[in-house]
Amino acid sequence: MTPQRESLQQYLASRRKLVDETLDRELTAPATAPQSIHEAMRYAVLGGGKRIRPVMAMAAAEACGAAIEPLLKAFAALELIHTYSLVHDDLPALDNDDLRRGRKTTHVVFGEALGILTGDALLTEAFVWMAAPIAGIDAARQLRALRQVAVAVDSKGMIGGQVADIESERAQERSADGEMLMRQLEFIHENKTGKLLTAAAVFGGILAGASDQKLAALHRYGHATGLAFQIVDDLLDVEGSSAALGKTAGKDVAQGKLTYPSLIGVERAREEAARLLQVAVDNADMIAGPLNYLADIARYICERRS
Amino acid sequence: MTPQRESLQQYLASRRKLVDETLDRELTAPATAPQSIHEAMRYAVLGGGKRIRPVMAMAAAEACGAAIEPLLKAFAALELIHTYSLVHDDLPALDNDDLRRGRKTTHVVFGEALGILTGDALLTEAFVWMAAPIAGIDAARQLRALRQVAVAVDSKGMIGGQVADIESERAQERSADGEMLMRQLEFIHENKTGKLLTAAAVFGGILAGASDQKLAALHRYGHATGLAFQIVDDLLDVEGSSAALGKTAGKDVAQGKLTYPSLIGVERAREEAARLLQVAVDNADMIAGPLNYLADIARYICERRS
Repeated sequence: MTPQRESLQQYLASRRKLVDETLDRELTAPATAPQSIHEAMRYAVLGGGKRIRPVMAMAAAEACGAAIEPLLKAFAALELIHTYSLVHDDLPALDNDDLRRGRKTTHVVFGEALGILTGDALLTEAFVWMAAPIAGIDAARQLRALRQVAVAVDSKGMIGGQVADIESERAQERSADGEMLMRQLEFIHENKTGKLLTAAAVFGGILAGASDQKLAALHRYGHATGLAFQIVDDLLDVEGSSAALGKTAGKDVAQGKLTYPSLIGVERAREEAARLLQVAVDNADMIAGPLNYLADIARYICERRS
Repeated sequence: MTPQRESLQQYLASRRKLVDETLDRELTAPATAPQSIHEAMRYAVLGGGKRIRPVMAMAAAEACGAAIEPLLKAFAALELIHTYSLVHDDLPALDNDDLRRGRKTTHVVFGEALGILTGDALLTEAFVWMAAPIAGIDAARQLRALRQVAVAVDSKGMIGGQVADIESERAQERSADGEMLMRQLEFIHENKTGKLLTAAAVFGGILAGASDQKLAALHRYGHATGLAFQIVDDLLDVEGSSAALGKTAGKDVAQGKLTYPSLIGVERAREEAARLLQVAVDNADMIAGPLNYLADIARYICERRS
């Protein structure tokens, strides 16, 4: 008898719980010397969050027929990478944010030096976790999975997207060339958030031993889901701010924020998000496993309401 | 006919040249988008340096009988990790250094945001290089080699040493307990510089397929060499500053700098360095390969004169 299929909400809640338990168990105990950095690492990581990247990796692995229990530490490593990027983005020299998810940011609590070193430590720990022996997993497969995550977050990936974002915000003069702006915006979104999401889906697939055909489908799924996620984010910003704050898309552009609605209009941005969601769903459906929540997750991510 | 043995100076020069060529070839071209980060990465890495860590990994691999050509990119990754640690250490929130090796530091040239992100990118790139396929190397061996480097530079390794160093410098009050101070100093040295040096030697050995017995010898060799290196550094500081600046060991302590000579005296520090060098040489001699420069390298490192 196959187990009854959980609802998406049950699935997400149970998988997040597994991620949270793994993070809490595997992060170094705060009493380990030097205590300050281990306290800071736990503070940064254990402050809540949707754990979307590990959950996406799990969903991909399960869709490809893998048992996720031996893979939990590797999946949780993706959350360490995501958290490191947030800790460094929040620093005074970058976005200078004092609050995240309603809590003080890491450098505000522990000081700027430890903020920098905590990000470094989380990134390093992610590789320790991804390289830790996994029962029943071939080393060549594991090395390949780790490598594509590293490539996704390097200077041509996530970090490159962050650099482009900073430089786009700071540019005092901007070309009026709409096509160039669109390429710039796509570069930022594809790299800053898209590549790690895509790598998460592919990571789960590789560790599950999926065929190259399925891995290609997971890549297209992750890419489309990541971009759709960003467009929906932009739309929520515009709609939320238009209603609540009276800000207009034109003002956003004047303030130096590149968004899809400001570049191509709300209507076309909605159409583009819908098109990308369909690409994600079509590719999710190519993974024919019995436990496939990938399409549901893409819909969930793209159909958020503010 | 066996090739004639080069002098140590010839050996070091030829191996450094291989590292420099590999770094120049493998670092992303500066014209790649975003240009600023790729320019900054090259600026930080290609500014000279002894390349001790890659050279030590090479010497270990050669002593264990490996051909180093296919391993160059992996060895060069160790220099990326060393450089990332320097770029972040130089930041205003940490040591706030404007100059290194006579050149402006990375954040001074490219700004603080890019200084942080360049360090992040170098660390990430190191894992991309260490995980890149190597002809003729078994994936399990490569994963093990990568993992022990990651562990060496994590929050319980190199980063932990940096945290302890910052906290020791900043401590306003210090215990007069000599044994506790000694443990603190050893923690800093073993972790901040010792662990990556040790990991470099073991990295070369693992990639060369060395036996567990030889790997243990390489570990003891790297550990002893790293600690001896630090004590010699401390001695040069004291002797250099005593002659040139009239600073005394007592002043160093008052200024918050822990050193071996200030804690145990110049004479005992010299004895300890000599003892450690002997441990390094004894362990180097356990690797019975025909091309073994490990003992010479340890002597070279420990017999520097200011």
